[in-house]
Amino acid sequence: MRVAIVGAGAWGTALGLILTRNAHEVLLWGHHPEYLRQIEKTRTNEQYLPGVPLPSEWQFLEKIEGAIAQTDVVVVAVPSKAFREIVQRLAAYRGIIVSVTKGIEYESGLTMSGVLRQCAPQASVAALSGPTLASEVARGFPSAIVAASEQLKTAEEVQLLFHRPSFRVYTSEDILGVELGGALKNVIAIAAGVGDGLGFGDNSKAALVTRAIAEIRRLGVVGGAQAETFSGLSGLGDLTVTCFSKLSRNRTLGERLGRGEKLEEVLQSSKGVAEGYPTARSAYQLARNLNVETPIIDEVYAMLYEKKDLADSLRDLTTRSSKPEN
Amino acid sequence: MRVAIVGAGAWGTALGLILTRNAHEVLLWGHHPEYLRQIEKTRTNEQYLPGVPLPSEWQFLEKIEGAIAQTDVVVVAVPSKAFREIVQRLAAYRGIIVSVTKGIEYESGLTMSGVLRQCAPQASVAALSGPTLASEVARGFPSAIVAASEQLKTAEEVQLLFHRPSFRVYTSEDILGVELGGALKNVIAIAAGVGDGLGFGDNSKAALVTRAIAEIRRLGVVGGAQAETFSGLSGLGDLTVTCFSKLSRNRTLGERLGRGEKLEEVLQSSKGVAEGYPTARSAYQLARNLNVETPIIDEVYAMLYEKKDLADSLRDLTTRSSKPEN
Repeated sequence: MRVAIVGAGAWGTALGLILTRNAHEVLLWGHHPEYLRQIEKTRTNEQYLPGVPLPSEWQFLEKIEGAIAQTDVVVVAVPSKAFREIVQRLAAYRGIIVSVTKGIEYESGLTMSGVLRQCAPQASVAALSGPTLASEVARGFPSAIVAASEQLKTAEEVQLLFHRPSFRVYTSEDILGVELGGALKNVIAIAAGVGDGLGFGDNSKAALVTRAIAEIRRLGVVGGAQAETFSGLSGLGDLTVTCFSKLSRNRTLGERLGRGEKLEEVLQSSKGVAEGYPTARSAYQLARNLNVETPIIDEVYAMLYEKKDLADSLRDLTTRSSKPEN
Repeated sequence: MRVAIVGAGAWGTALGLILTRNAHEVLLWGHHPEYLRQIEKTRTNEQYLPGVPLPSEWQFLEKIEGAIAQTDVVVVAVPSKAFREIVQRLAAYRGIIVSVTKGIEYESGLTMSGVLRQCAPQASVAALSGPTLASEVARGFPSAIVAASEQLKTAEEVQLLFHRPSFRVYTSEDILGVELGGALKNVIAIAAGVGDGLGFGDNSKAALVTRAIAEIRRLGVVGGAQAETFSGLSGLGDLTVTCFSKLSRNRTLGERLGRGEKLEEVLQSSKGVAEGYPTARSAYQLARNLNVETPIIDEVYAMLYEKKDLADSLRDLTTRSSKPEN
């Protein structure tokens, strides 16, 4: 198959490598033409996925619209805040569009598949999400992920595209649950990172993760997702890796805040986008709209958007009297 | 209250510190009289909880039987393989006995509370379990844990005893579920550690944890526990911290195996007991008796007791085709 990857960050690049290993043709598009040319010339993505050589077969797309006639599948791997603007350029697309972006649009409360259905109504829409740090996937470390679509057939097509021995792809028809799990865990990871930065330890992080998956499930179910999805790879699996791995971008953002850096500094100097930052605001709003109690999300929102003292927030999270599931 | 702590390892000592902070009287008993005298003299438990000064008020028990007349509560914190022999000496006890030992007796398939009910039939039986690394608890890091008993009143008495701002205690009436979560996670942690030792990365560990909590829940429910208990602190919470924390003893055992050390070497040179090793055998047997499929436990059993090649086992765990929950 011919697949366009829209977005030349770490995750888009890593997924391109999987596709090449599965003998598909890859066409890469990136936001900065100059940087894309550098990738083409050096056959490495030095800024976002350093140290990983890229295949000489990869082609490069100057315009997103070029994907429409030339490809069977488009994988969208851009930051959530740019997502709508970019997929509007795929309005006429009739193939499969796979979102691998984890976020919730603030204005609409939609996940990326919801945006896709509005902007590219003739496309088949899927999401691919799970506990998959890009650098490990790029290096062929064993990983497992979920391909989700409201149409099982579409989910299975995406599964076939990416599945290989070291990259197991499961399917789900609960695309909303898969996407909400992936988006919301980034918010929790910021709290986990703040705990790391403040030196709160692993016991409190485990308690946080336990309460968080219940909170994510509660919000997701009221939003229309299936409860059991949050116990799977794209829910619990992604939450644990993001909260515990040193490689997680959102956890790192929280850790730097916990160590005393200013939010503006951290955002400006981060490589790639920490989606937990905008998602905290979208999730806080979504929970208000759906009238769901989300104490952890609320604390992260207060830390990031209301300058609440971090230690106070973490203390509220770890010593509040609301009962966890057990 | 006057509380005897039976077992002078890291966890018994850390819980003693919590009790002293809550203004209870602590009497400590340990298996090695000489080592106990050293603790008494130096007021530190240098071998198992180094660097933490112990209260001068602590008293020391020469004989376990001394606890019977002198105390309201006995906390048993000894390795599971010594548990029955030790609690037999409390046969006449009529107070509360709290097990903080995580294991399953091989011969009987019983958790420690089951052994307690057989050996001390007049006592009120409770278990205390959760994601609580001893060194963090001793240092006052925020932690949360579950006090479980078939009698809610007993669970609440244990809760009152230990609860404090930095050590939140929740209650549960599903003592079996709480104990099985605590025991079985140690088996999974060995697999997680082997993955670390072999360099499998965090993605595969997250997938392992996701599948493992479903497997633990499946086994536990057939054994008579409540499904939701495994989503709480004593299930999922303890599983995540044990699989991800560098401080976890069972994860470390697995990591050393993964790096190529021989099992006998690792067992002999480990400080304290890695309960996952005997529990792998008990859990494997329990699953056979209950006719429950436990692919992860089976692989750990095969690695530890049948000398199965570690990389083969891990590959079987990460690439097998059985579907996770999602």
